[in-house]
Amino acid sequence: MNLSGFRLLQICPVGGARAGELITPHGMVPTPVFLPVGSQGTVKTLTPAEVKDIGFRMVLANTYHLYLRPGIKVVAEMGGLHKFMAWHGAILTDSGGYQVFSLAPLRKVNDGGVTFRSHIDGSEHFITPESIIHFQEALGADIVMVLDECTAYGDSLEKVRQAMARTHRWAERCRKAKKSDDQSLYAIVQGGMYPELRRQSAGYLTSLDFAGYAIGGLSVGEPKEVTLAMVEETVPLLPGDKPRYLMGVGSPEDIVEGVSRGIDIFDSALPTRVARNGALFTGQGRRNISNAVFRRMESPFDPECDCYTCRNFSAAYLHHLFKSGELLALRLATIHNLSFISRLMGEIRSAIMNGTFSTFRDNFLANYKPTDEQARVSQKQKWLESRNRVD
Amino acid sequence: MNLSGFRLLQICPVGGARAGELITPHGMVPTPVFLPVGSQGTVKTLTPAEVKDIGFRMVLANTYHLYLRPGIKVVAEMGGLHKFMAWHGAILTDSGGYQVFSLAPLRKVNDGGVTFRSHIDGSEHFITPESIIHFQEALGADIVMVLDECTAYGDSLEKVRQAMARTHRWAERCRKAKKSDDQSLYAIVQGGMYPELRRQSAGYLTSLDFAGYAIGGLSVGEPKEVTLAMVEETVPLLPGDKPRYLMGVGSPEDIVEGVSRGIDIFDSALPTRVARNGALFTGQGRRNISNAVFRRMESPFDPECDCYTCRNFSAAYLHHLFKSGELLALRLATIHNLSFISRLMGEIRSAIMNGTFSTFRDNFLANYKPTDEQARVSQKQKWLESRNRVD
Repeated sequence: MNLSGFRLLQICPVGGARAGELITPHGMVPTPVFLPVGSQGTVKTLTPAEVKDIGFRMVLANTYHLYLRPGIKVVAEMGGLHKFMAWHGAILTDSGGYQVFSLAPLRKVNDGGVTFRSHIDGSEHFITPESIIHFQEALGADIVMVLDECTAYGDSLEKVRQAMARTHRWAERCRKAKKSDDQSLYAIVQGGMYPELRRQSAGYLTSLDFAGYAIGGLSVGEPKEVTLAMVEETVPLLPGDKPRYLMGVGSPEDIVEGVSRGIDIFDSALPTRVARNGALFTGQGRRNISNAVFRRMESPFDPECDCYTCRNFSAAYLHHLFKSGELLALRLATIHNLSFISRLMGEIRSAIMNGTFSTFRDNFLANYKPTDEQARVSQKQKWLESRNRVD
Repeated sequence: MNLSGFRLLQICPVGGARAGELITPHGMVPTPVFLPVGSQGTVKTLTPAEVKDIGFRMVLANTYHLYLRPGIKVVAEMGGLHKFMAWHGAILTDSGGYQVFSLAPLRKVNDGGVTFRSHIDGSEHFITPESIIHFQEALGADIVMVLDECTAYGDSLEKVRQAMARTHRWAERCRKAKKSDDQSLYAIVQGGMYPELRRQSAGYLTSLDFAGYAIGGLSVGEPKEVTLAMVEETVPLLPGDKPRYLMGVGSPEDIVEGVSRGIDIFDSALPTRVARNGALFTGQGRRNISNAVFRRMESPFDPECDCYTCRNFSAAYLHHLFKSGELLALRLATIHNLSFISRLMGEIRSAIMNGTFSTFRDNFLANYKPTDEQARVSQKQKWLESRNRVD
């Protein structure tokens, strides 16, 4: 019996939004799906039971982070990542390519692999496409990713082309290095913001026959139109029967836009990160709970929300917890935002199955006011510069 | 029907350890009892449901903190403190006397009351014994405390005597100011480290007939023998049929020692505060989960513990969460320490009821190795100096 795979159940005739099922050794995952980010083996502030209760069946963890701390060997000795983090659903591990290129100071890349220094203690490390696959096999993730070379927004055509070519050579080596049949290996399409490179990358990787295809190197500070344009260049060249994963994208409006362009899988730290800053999702956009308007609001933050936070606490109490710097604030806000996303994914999927997705999308986007684009890009830039670890 | 009161069920013939029941408008609370500290209306990191599941039926909140933020009026408008923090068990509010004297910069005391500046924003405030009672009535706590003037460890006999005398005058005013019948008002015995003042204070306050008697002004940096000596001076002078509350005491060994001297109620931020520093209770003493010995420990931190943390996670995972600065670490450690204390209180009570308390105490103290006294005093001193808010 094949424990891995993807089954398409419905495709919208206009646009190509899809509903399907990912089959993994740790259960079936309905798509489109959003993966909460648990880089260090924990979705920040929550227990695995809470993540499951919110409705998630798959989470993302990060090979770079777990390699540096606690170490791949420790996780393997403790019985693998599922047992270590006590998460019995599916896990997708990112290879850590993005983290090596965005977090590690002093890195040197050549065709063999990457030498880099740890952002934690400065120690020197060397990883290869092969070692990254072996790490992910030792972690025991259900879906694993190739090692890719990531470029920054604004890099030149020539620089991006070279990184893409290396990503292609590494993808092939990852495929050969993979030993386990329990894990699905996904390739990562690169090519920066250059349409012709995106097309080349999709064409080349498709020829190698991976279990799924990710679109990497986006949501790195570019305007939203550019992100979507790159998705539109890439998706038509990917095989229709394989899952498509748009990496690092996860604001509500971007998820809806991505689904309507044929994306099946999303991940992003955005819902949990902005929650910890007090920015909570509503059907009309994000609102900050620290705003004085909530100080005496006896009703829940969102009376229509059925999440644990809104069922049990007033907006005034949540406001008070944030103003007082209480740790419970971060949990309750995280639960709210992840519940919003979980519910959104369920609504998207139902709409696709019922043939009403384009109406759903139009209504959602008409009501949901995204964070001002200029503010968004500058926030993202600030975050990229200031962080000392990805979450 | 009287919804408030205290019923004694058993007294040990040697030493005087007692088991009883506090009757409150929000349910019966078995004694001896430890109150988890939720100064700002939340037991740090936990939901009310978690606090209840651990086994607690009463928590402590702080009038000083809630007065400054979100404001007594806001809590009252939101339906009172129980509803505001969604805690349906009993609540004891401290008057905030200790916080005014230990946290607020620039305070002036006279017989009328205290003028002080907020440690949050520097704003000036004036409180009186009467206003503190009205605040606690507006919060709706089940047990409320008089306003007391607190002194520091090392203060002179004369200084402590004057503060004690003022505490007595204020206690009488608090009694007169109290309007609600739903709330039990406890007096606070002061007198610093001076046995003769402790005796005077207990004698005077007992003559006024309060619903319960607290021993305040201890656990402020003095050696443990002094704390216990002051308890021994005070307890025999308190009425046998009223509950006795040793404020700010809550290490496992101090609770056992306090119970064996006739104390019924304890509160302390220690179990939750040290948890957030990674110091977890075991039957043999505290151990720090960040210690390298736990890095590869596949078993739970304490295999004999039945708390949520030890039932679900390996010591290695908890170690990893602490080393990685993950917020879930603080929750899981808090759950473990509060579960340890909750279980300890249950065992103490059973032992008293069964007439085996002195054996239980001897066994417990023989196994439990307290934190080195010198380290303890210096840690406490550092914490008293460094904190900018009490928790």
